[in-house]
Amino acid sequence: MPHSTHDEYEQLDVIAVGAHPDDLEIACGGTLARLVDAGHKVGMIDLTDGEPTPLSPGPEVRLAEAKAAAETLGVQRRTTLDLPNRRLFDSFEARVKLAIEFRKYRPRLVIGIGDRTPMASPDHWQAMQIIDAAVFYSRLTKWDEHFDHLPVHTIDRQIYCMLAQPLSGVPTLHGHLLVDISDTLERKLASIRCFKTQFPATKNGLFVRLESMARYLGSTAGVEAAEMLMSPRPLVTRDLMDALFA
Amino acid sequence: MPHSTHDEYEQLDVIAVGAHPDDLEIACGGTLARLVDAGHKVGMIDLTDGEPTPLSPGPEVRLAEAKAAAETLGVQRRTTLDLPNRRLFDSFEARVKLAIEFRKYRPRLVIGIGDRTPMASPDHWQAMQIIDAAVFYSRLTKWDEHFDHLPVHTIDRQIYCMLAQPLSGVPTLHGHLLVDISDTLERKLASIRCFKTQFPATKNGLFVRLESMARYLGSTAGVEAAEMLMSPRPLVTRDLMDALFA
Amino acid sequence: MPHSTHDEYEQLDVIAVGAHPDDLEIACGGTLARLVDAGHKVGMIDLTDGEPTPLSPGPEVRLAEAKAAAETLGVQRRTTLDLPNRRLFDSFEARVKLAIEFRKYRPRLVIGIGDRTPMASPDHWQAMQIIDAAVFYSRLTKWDEHFDHLPVHTIDRQIYCMLAQPLSGVPTLHGHLLVDISDTLERKLASIRCFKTQFPATKNGLFVRLESMARYLGSTAGVEAAEMLMSPRPLVTRDLMDALFA
Amino acid sequence: MPHSTHDEYEQLDVIAVGAHPDDLEIACGGTLARLVDAGHKVGMIDLTDGEPTPLSPGPEVRLAEAKAAAETLGVQRRTTLDLPNRRLFDSFEARVKLAIEFRKYRPRLVIGIGDRTPMASPDHWQAMQIIDAAVFYSRLTKWDEHFDHLPVHTIDRQIYCMLAQPLSGVPTLHGHLLVDISDTLERKLASIRCFKTQFPATKNGLFVRLESMARYLGSTAGVEAAEMLMSPRPLVTRDLMDALFA
Amino acid sequence: MPHSTHDEYEQLDVIAVGAHPDDLEIACGGTLARLVDAGHKVGMIDLTDGEPTPLSPGPEVRLAEAKAAAETLGVQRRTTLDLPNRRLFDSFEARVKLAIEFRKYRPRLVIGIGDRTPMASPDHWQAMQIIDAAVFYSRLTKWDEHFDHLPVHTIDRQIYCMLAQPLSGVPTLHGHLLVDISDTLERKLASIRCFKTQFPATKNGLFVRLESMARYLGSTAGVEAAEMLMSPRPLVTRDLMDALFA
Amino acid sequence: MPHSTHDEYEQLDVIAVGAHPDDLEIACGGTLARLVDAGHKVGMIDLTDGEPTPLSPGPEVRLAEAKAAAETLGVQRRTTLDLPNRRLFDSFEARVKLAIEFRKYRPRLVIGIGDRTPMASPDHWQAMQIIDAAVFYSRLTKWDEHFDHLPVHTIDRQIYCMLAQPLSGVPTLHGHLLVDISDTLERKLASIRCFKTQFPATKNGLFVRLESMARYLGSTAGVEAAEMLMSPRPLVTRDLMDALFA
Repeated sequence: MPHSTHDEYEQLDVIAVGAHPDDLEIACGGTLARLVDAGHKVGMIDLTDGEPTPLSPGPEVRLAEAKAAAETLGVQRRTTLDLPNRRLFDSFEARVKLAIEFRKYRPRLVIGIGDRTPMASPDHWQAMQIIDAAVFYSRLTKWDEHFDHLPVHTIDRQIYCMLAQPLSGVPTLHGHLLVDISDTLERKLASIRCFKTQFPATKNGLFVRLESMARYLGSTAGVEAAEMLMSPRPLVTRDLMDALFA
Repeated sequence: MPHSTHDEYEQLDVIAVGAHPDDLEIACGGTLARLVDAGHKVGMIDLTDGEPTPLSPGPEVRLAEAKAAAETLGVQRRTTLDLPNRRLFDSFEARVKLAIEFRKYRPRLVIGIGDRTPMASPDHWQAMQIIDAAVFYSRLTKWDEHFDHLPVHTIDRQIYCMLAQPLSGVPTLHGHLLVDISDTLERKLASIRCFKTQFPATKNGLFVRLESMARYLGSTAGVEAAEMLMSPRPLVTRDLMDALFA
Repeated sequence: MPHSTHDEYEQLDVIAVGAHPDDLEIACGGTLARLVDAGHKVGMIDLTDGEPTPLSPGPEVRLAEAKAAAETLGVQRRTTLDLPNRRLFDSFEARVKLAIEFRKYRPRLVIGIGDRTPMASPDHWQAMQIIDAAVFYSRLTKWDEHFDHLPVHTIDRQIYCMLAQPLSGVPTLHGHLLVDISDTLERKLASIRCFKTQFPATKNGLFVRLESMARYLGSTAGVEAAEMLMSPRPLVTRDLMDALFA
Repeated sequence: MPHSTHDEYEQLDVIAVGAHPDDLEIACGGTLARLVDAGHKVGMIDLTDGEPTPLSPGPEVRLAEAKAAAETLGVQRRTTLDLPNRRLFDSFEARVKLAIEFRKYRPRLVIGIGDRTPMASPDHWQAMQIIDAAVFYSRLTKWDEHFDHLPVHTIDRQIYCMLAQPLSGVPTLHGHLLVDISDTLERKLASIRCFKTQFPATKNGLFVRLESMARYLGSTAGVEAAEMLMSPRPLVTRDLMDALFA
Repeated sequence: MPHSTHDEYEQLDVIAVGAHPDDLEIACGGTLARLVDAGHKVGMIDLTDGEPTPLSPGPEVRLAEAKAAAETLGVQRRTTLDLPNRRLFDSFEARVKLAIEFRKYRPRLVIGIGDRTPMASPDHWQAMQIIDAAVFYSRLTKWDEHFDHLPVHTIDRQIYCMLAQPLSGVPTLHGHLLVDISDTLERKLASIRCFKTQFPATKNGLFVRLESMARYLGSTAGVEAAEMLMSPRPLVTRDLMDALFA
Repeated sequence: MPHSTHDEYEQLDVIAVGAHPDDLEIACGGTLARLVDAGHKVGMIDLTDGEPTPLSPGPEVRLAEAKAAAETLGVQRRTTLDLPNRRLFDSFEARVKLAIEFRKYRPRLVIGIGDRTPMASPDHWQAMQIIDAAVFYSRLTKWDEHFDHLPVHTIDRQIYCMLAQPLSGVPTLHGHLLVDISDTLERKLASIRCFKTQFPATKNGLFVRLESMARYLGSTAGVEAAEMLMSPRPLVTRDLMDALFA
């Protein structure tokens, strides 16, 4: 059987993956906007539609909010997979669905949710495991029948974003990296405000937390605002001065 | 030779110790104000007068600023020792000078600077060692000749405050504890603004950093604003519900 | 369809959840007895009946032991869910079963098993994931059909207890807290001795380990005996003196 | 029904378990060869046959490679279970299959894969959970029907080997231990080279990484080459001099 | 000038170094007794005489206590240096005094105090730095004039013992190792009781803490009682089975 | 009194500081060579002349070796301060001597030794404290009389290099960063070989250790060879793709 082609799918430089619409805006919205501003092509994937939620009239409204948020950030694509919200489990089927997207859009970098979130949704912990597996599935040969016969694609790097920024304690992986979002903090917050059904005007707590966290993280590194990412591989540079002063 | 008495010195519940005026305001000003509001008697000790600094006309002005800051926080006493700014070293003499204050004012709790501060003053690292030793010296018998014949005093607990809040990484001691400073954040910032020679109106960076850090720390614990302290002993409670919900 | 009511279920302040009868006695029995003594209403849930085990004639005997242990601790309720011992897996059904209990008894605090236990039962690791999810499921709206139409209930705080106290190493979450069990250590040990089929008179090793651990932990905090809990949120206090000296 | 016997199965001192053929060679091949040289009987178990892979013509060839590698290391047995490569999940069936092997060969020590491997196969993370559970299942009474009526077997110790040696950061368990493989590094590398379909002569990167890691680890301990293992229990010795100088 | 010889000094296998008499008994008395029982020649060095203390009539009594304690442990030698108690500082002179002892008695292993002890004596932190330096000074050539012309001696290994066992948190060095003191716990406690002026019959707290800690540490490793040591180099073994089962 | 000028001193982009000649070659020689290759002006400062050592005929020879090593790396300047080898202590005078060099050559970045080195020289631990202080002293106003009336200079960033690469364990600061030294590893090793009196042809152990460490660190990051640095501030980037792929 002939391999299908992916000519119809425009290559993306970066794909970020969250469990629910608004996860990525909260965890790395400023980073995504910065990547767009730097000229990279960026896609967002929500594993579920995040519905139902208390104040949302239904999936269509949530999807419209997600679309508006993506436009605010300026990303090229946003996709919602049909995995089940609230009952997301790491499974072969979930892994394959996500890997198909990776094979279609062929990103160099995948940014994925990377933590357990006690007292909040267990979907995040499952999402991390699905993303880890799908990054691997994307490059596996002799398995095309599971992936609509899309060619394999090797993702160069994977990095984790954090929904619950650790106050202190345990960096679980090789190192954290701050992304300067001084220019995009406002857009990040605006993208989250697009989710009107989730964060009505009367609920301001999240915005205080996110803004203070961004400004605090930024202040530790000498910039106005920042987001923190965790890398499973150590950070390496050929030019130390560039790495420290760029 | 008869022991001298400390009748002339009013007992304090808490003494906080920093290397320079403004250290304590920055590291734990909100906590000190909360302690005062809760009815505790609180003293502040600066090991040095912090002078010279670029914009200060001299020690008298700095001391006046420190006095105003202490009044803003509402603490009962502020003392400046005559140890040398910029060249503070852990030494027998420095330890004794501080321990004499502890013997005079007999605090139950000592709050002290607790970290190395790369790229900033090495005095903080030395101060931590001096404070550790003075807490011990305060209770040593058969040594009164070094302490103006003041009676020994055993300090019940010691805790560390942080000038450079760790972004992530290593809690160096047994546990950190947040103090809710929602009610006193404004007073904390106001006390720092008393140091006009150090933080002129045009230098707002410190205030952004401190306010965002306090709000961020607070948000991680469900309060408006918080400061972080580190305890050399584990925290213990007889009533878990009180500890979690009080 | 009208929501069912929970009028028939008496509200509990605290629910502790383990994988097997005797897990909770071992991990936090002293804490539960202290909570009871302080006037809080406390429930215990075992996800499985823990059977079979080598010396137990069957589930009825184990349940009778669990009942006696609960009475020794003085807790108001003990429930055994019908999830399968030895083959417990995090699943939608398991999460829902536990969340139904939370919706019925509406605790403010959930204490749950919080660690992997190499060389012992894998059920503990699965239990942690089930508990995390059920705390979240308890407050999810628009899902009542899965929960016998019980109203949602938001649990205020969650904390982890440890079956295998870490010797040193990695606090995986925001901070540990010791609970003073000086008054209830004896009752803790007595409650474990109720499990005659598990800990026959000839097997004293567990009791030596638990007593020495409690006394050691206590000694690090200046009390006679203690248990250690881990909090996913930092500990915060409005009154530092109360937190340190209460 | 009468219990079956295991008379037909020769007891092994050590069983090492990996997800795929070549996992164990990479993670602890030098250690296995050392154990053999010291006179211990050693078995290897691969949970899956590791197929398909890009350059392998099929499972038979991979199995032949695995057999050659085992002979190079000198181990007594190598078994391949029929769990599915690339889609390994912790499950009751997987746990039982592995525990049956433990009951048959009755090892004192189990060495198992012990880490998540971001950007590589998710099978490793699942394998760790399967191994943890199977070590426990091996000693469970009253469950013989699941285990071909093989008698229970209690494994004395379990230890983890690492596919992705941590550069720095978090030892997740009680302690790491280096094994001196100065005498067996060559055999380790030779055993990996047996997997010609996986590591063709043109792909030398893995060998550079493994040799430099072994020599680096060795140099930190004053020996020529070493592998790192992680123990879930602290290391204990009756003779400190032996432990440090042996 | 001719080098002096050390023919008059009997070689010791191990030298342990503390700041005050009773430090070593508390931190590693069980280990020292075990080393003696295993046939090793062991010396103890106290950097100071530990005097004055509240209930001691003077140095002669304290020294007599130290002598009795050493005899209880069975060590071959105990030496008290004349460095000043309570005001110990890392200095060239202190380093040299200790290194002279190392050159005289030529130990293969040095066990030294290895931690800061907040709320207790700052001498411990200084002692650690003195010991680190003296281990190095012992092997420095072309410096004999500072060392009574004693020949250089290279110490093979150094390890740290702990006065304040960490409850959890940060292993500061490469790994911890437990020493099984099941056979010598009683002798350890007896040696501490020799310090009658320090621990009168009415002060039992220390003994409860030390015994519970030893039993707790032991229970984590499957032995009756243990002490914890920290190694600046990773632990390495040629025979994994010996390391785990010996 | 008029300020002196530093017109006579050519500005340097980077100054690296070690305790002894060969410290910097070992800890960050590859990084220094890379910085030179990238067009940055680099200086090296040795706090002491490192003499005496066993095989060196005297300081002149050691200095000649250091000069040859600096030429091998291609750095612009190498300075040896006259602080005492083997008895280096953090002191006001030592801090000032180093800060004078910083004021003269006005680096943007200071790379300094950053660790305790048990079993090796205590000078490294003292050097770290001297460097920390001197970075601060360099920018202090109103103190010119101590610094030959050289104008103040603010160093933008400080970073630590490691003599004893941690195997695993505790990142003491905000994050580690690898520098790709694939192009300069050979030059690094050649620069160390310039120290013929320290590393005679018969002593190859250091070279095996350094080369294997560099190749191992490199392999973790996908490059041929690397050195590890530790930053007291988190790493921040405006362009994530550049940070990960540059």
